[in-house]
Amino acid sequence: MVKAKKFIYAKAFQGQPKSENFKLEEFELPELKDDEVLCEAIFLSVDPYMRPYMSRFPVGSTMIGGQIAKVTNSKHSKFPTGSMIYGDFGWQTHTIFNPENLSETFINEPIVLPNFGNLPYSYALGCLGMPGNTAFFGFLEICQPKKGETVVITGAAGAVGCLVGQIAKIKGCIVVGFAGTDEKCKWLTNECQFDHAFNYKTCDITKSLKEAAPNGIDCYFDNVGGEISSTILRQMNLFGRVSVCGSISVYNENMEDLPKVTIVQPLLLFKQLKMEGFIVSRWKSRFGEGFASMLNWVKEGKIKYRETVTEGFENMPNAFMEMLNGKNIGKAIVKI
Amino acid sequence: MVKAKKFIYAKAFQGQPKSENFKLEEFELPELKDDEVLCEAIFLSVDPYMRPYMSRFPVGSTMIGGQIAKVTNSKHSKFPTGSMIYGDFGWQTHTIFNPENLSETFINEPIVLPNFGNLPYSYALGCLGMPGNTAFFGFLEICQPKKGETVVITGAAGAVGCLVGQIAKIKGCIVVGFAGTDEKCKWLTNECQFDHAFNYKTCDITKSLKEAAPNGIDCYFDNVGGEISSTILRQMNLFGRVSVCGSISVYNENMEDLPKVTIVQPLLLFKQLKMEGFIVSRWKSRFGEGFASMLNWVKEGKIKYRETVTEGFENMPNAFMEMLNGKNIGKAIVKI
Repeated sequence: MVKAKKFIYAKAFQGQPKSENFKLEEFELPELKDDEVLCEAIFLSVDPYMRPYMSRFPVGSTMIGGQIAKVTNSKHSKFPTGSMIYGDFGWQTHTIFNPENLSETFINEPIVLPNFGNLPYSYALGCLGMPGNTAFFGFLEICQPKKGETVVITGAAGAVGCLVGQIAKIKGCIVVGFAGTDEKCKWLTNECQFDHAFNYKTCDITKSLKEAAPNGIDCYFDNVGGEISSTILRQMNLFGRVSVCGSISVYNENMEDLPKVTIVQPLLLFKQLKMEGFIVSRWKSRFGEGFASMLNWVKEGKIKYRETVTEGFENMPNAFMEMLNGKNIGKAIVKI
Repeated sequence: MVKAKKFIYAKAFQGQPKSENFKLEEFELPELKDDEVLCEAIFLSVDPYMRPYMSRFPVGSTMIGGQIAKVTNSKHSKFPTGSMIYGDFGWQTHTIFNPENLSETFINEPIVLPNFGNLPYSYALGCLGMPGNTAFFGFLEICQPKKGETVVITGAAGAVGCLVGQIAKIKGCIVVGFAGTDEKCKWLTNECQFDHAFNYKTCDITKSLKEAAPNGIDCYFDNVGGEISSTILRQMNLFGRVSVCGSISVYNENMEDLPKVTIVQPLLLFKQLKMEGFIVSRWKSRFGEGFASMLNWVKEGKIKYRETVTEGFENMPNAFMEMLNGKNIGKAIVKI
């Protein structure tokens, strides 16, 4: 018998997540049946989307999320013992799954990871996983950036934002990022090659943009929503494109009673802007393409990646809450 | 010597336009030179866009706008005497222009209208002119409506809105309109074949939409902006499309200090909506195509059109102010 642990969504979120929203439970896994695979989590992901998405699940559900796990016992030839896999197993240390009969809670089918060489497997939760594809497709497909254009990114030091900026640099754009600490901004300009990075908590946003983007903004990759987005939209150029990837500024709000911000439609109208929200799964059939490009860029050193690692499964709620409060630089992960 | 009248932008708009913002001036036109054309206004247009656009012109400029005029004297073979033309001549009774050397204030080059048969030439200011092309391209190109989809329109009884709804019906959509009086709503359902029309001033918008669009909204043609747009966006379906044609709700506001409304980005995000602002001139090279389609539909009786006609050039400011206050049904025009 294998003993496992999982975190339960113990109390519905209201405002900022607190410890009381999570409950650690131990349970025993049954014997492995035909076709089944047993795996053990190595790295778990905490991501902003979990905050709004959990509201769709009943209290008592296992917290949702992706993880990198090692197959420790297998009765399925496609998942040999010892292989490293990615799976949407939630906040759970050990999982049994049947690849022929997956439960509906799986967003993606579990996949065996290729050999990562010198790169850590945790990257499959970041630049070589969902956040990587989010940056790759969400930016390139929706913003359609052209060489020499100016790209602005909010939440720029997060798991996705820092990748968008570096992809934009590869495409020959001028890149301006907004992040929430001076340390993050330093990392963006020193390591990630952003042309400019500003601490939105202390800078004059309008003035900073006028200086950093004197020719106006062509593409805006929006991770946060909020008033800063209206301010950025005001400085966009004719036919600018806006990719709405996240709305962290409202994830702790009541979705039925969202806050008010300066209206954006007149800004869209006079500059003929296009603004589109997306969820990365729409490009699921092309994930291989995104992965391959990101892998090349990371191997070539054209994309730098950073992780904020929390040790210990029992610290998952903390890692999640700190990530929502912007404590992470780059991807927030939990290492078992 | 021909005596002419024009309205001058006498005082910068602040809030709602008032009589003091306009000044009627008389002036004499010079003798016609080689290549020049003299024409006399028959119908003049008042449109919402004039409110925000005039702010870009210095006080003392002639009020901008399109008109249908008759050529009364011509030294240019392309504009023979007696022909009916469309021109961006502004609020002015008589105009001399040189087709070989147009001033920069012309948005479009003057054009000789084809024979309209039984249809009034004033339609060239509406369904067979700029508003017609605005509805045709702004709806079909940006919303990409499919048969059976639900389309919502605000400002539905205006010059553009009523056309969008009828084009949507031709394309096999379910059409829901919002307008500001019960009389307008009756006209939309009785004459324009809208499936539903609601008086936004008296109805519960959320509830009305739930009843009229039980399967959600696929396309939203937005003429007004404002809080109603956030409410509509909340009921949109996955991959819905929003065409931002106008923002009448803020045209009397200070553009540097726009009002706040419920944030739209989270709504765009979770439903993966696309929202795009446009100005019809982007499809200038295809105006002939729009005109031909609209002309056919009007001739076939598939599109009904209505005008609110104000008589007398001196009443242009009133016609304009009443149109901004929603007093018109269909296209607001002034007849000399």
